[in-house]
Amino acid sequence: MNIDTLKASVRNVPDFPIPGIQFKDVTTLFKEPNNLRQLAQLLKERYADKGITKVVGIESRGFIMGPILALELGAGFVPIRKPGKLPAETIEESYEKEYGRDTIQMHRDALSPDDVVLLHDDLLATGGTMLAAYRLVRQAGVKQVYINFLIELADLRGRGVFPPEVEVDTLMSFDK
Amino acid sequence: MNIDTLKASVRNVPDFPIPGIQFKDVTTLFKEPNNLRQLAQLLKERYADKGITKVVGIESRGFIMGPILALELGAGFVPIRKPGKLPAETIEESYEKEYGRDTIQMHRDALSPDDVVLLHDDLLATGGTMLAAYRLVRQAGVKQVYINFLIELADLRGRGVFPPEVEVDTLMSFDK
Repeated sequence: MNIDTLKASVRNVPDFPIPGIQFKDVTTLFKEPNNLRQLAQLLKERYADKGITKVVGIESRGFIMGPILALELGAGFVPIRKPGKLPAETIEESYEKEYGRDTIQMHRDALSPDDVVLLHDDLLATGGTMLAAYRLVRQAGVKQVYINFLIELADLRGRGVFPPEVEVDTLMSFDK
Repeated sequence: MNIDTLKASVRNVPDFPIPGIQFKDVTTLFKEPNNLRQLAQLLKERYADKGITKVVGIESRGFIMGPILALELGAGFVPIRKPGKLPAETIEESYEKEYGRDTIQMHRDALSPDDVVLLHDDLLATGGTMLAAYRLVRQAGVKQVYINFLIELADLRGRGVFPPEVEVDTLMSFDK
């Protein structure tokens, strides 16, 4: 199995959530056992030598492969969530979306200065949420941060929003 | 490591989300690599001989151990989500909550008649959401269903809501 087989398992849903958008549906990817195994293996290979101590996943589709990646790398898993969901003391970042502002939170004690963090989400579109997540993890004061997505929508050029010093890696790229 | 060590990693947060509730915070459990490994191992042992073909996780904390469990069991992962989140055709169930009704959805084509399903969520309180999830999976017409939680709040007696023919298993039990 290769990347093209995985790409073929991603379902394209036209006009969701609004007309004109070609939505990349990862549920058809995750429901096949062979795909899960292959994704786990490919991601493990990419990050095995980075000394990752925490995988941070963004609610909620980043919760699916994030914990698998943490287990495979011998790291812990930390969630970034929408406001009001995390019960203990949090830190937060806000960012502009097409319609209004959004905020994401992480527990203040989730990370420590020695942590090497792999930030994970399923899909890179414009990059706004992940950039806020990156700032949130930087706010926590860790040693190093890597960013990973399963899918990149290349024509939206979301990669361009991240600072040049951070390594951004995607497994599958789609043009439309 | 045993169950008591895992239980000790669950943080108790008093008065969240409302006064009087002792919230069980699983983020402190998942952030330790040894815990993730131990949870994966314990859950794998419990279900290895059941012929599970799909693990179905409930958004969003059921997305954390659900996919790990799927990978360990050689099964696929299927998400149950809040309304409007799944892009393709869905089936749904509604249920009463303390304040008003809630609805959950699953893709209509996520499961097939031959599937043996392990339904997973992190915490059993009153059981309302999981009962709706159970009905949703039954609506899809699968061969067999097992239910698993990491944590059970025993004094809320949520187990009582499930039909006697379904096997409900929890890893850790708390009285308060």
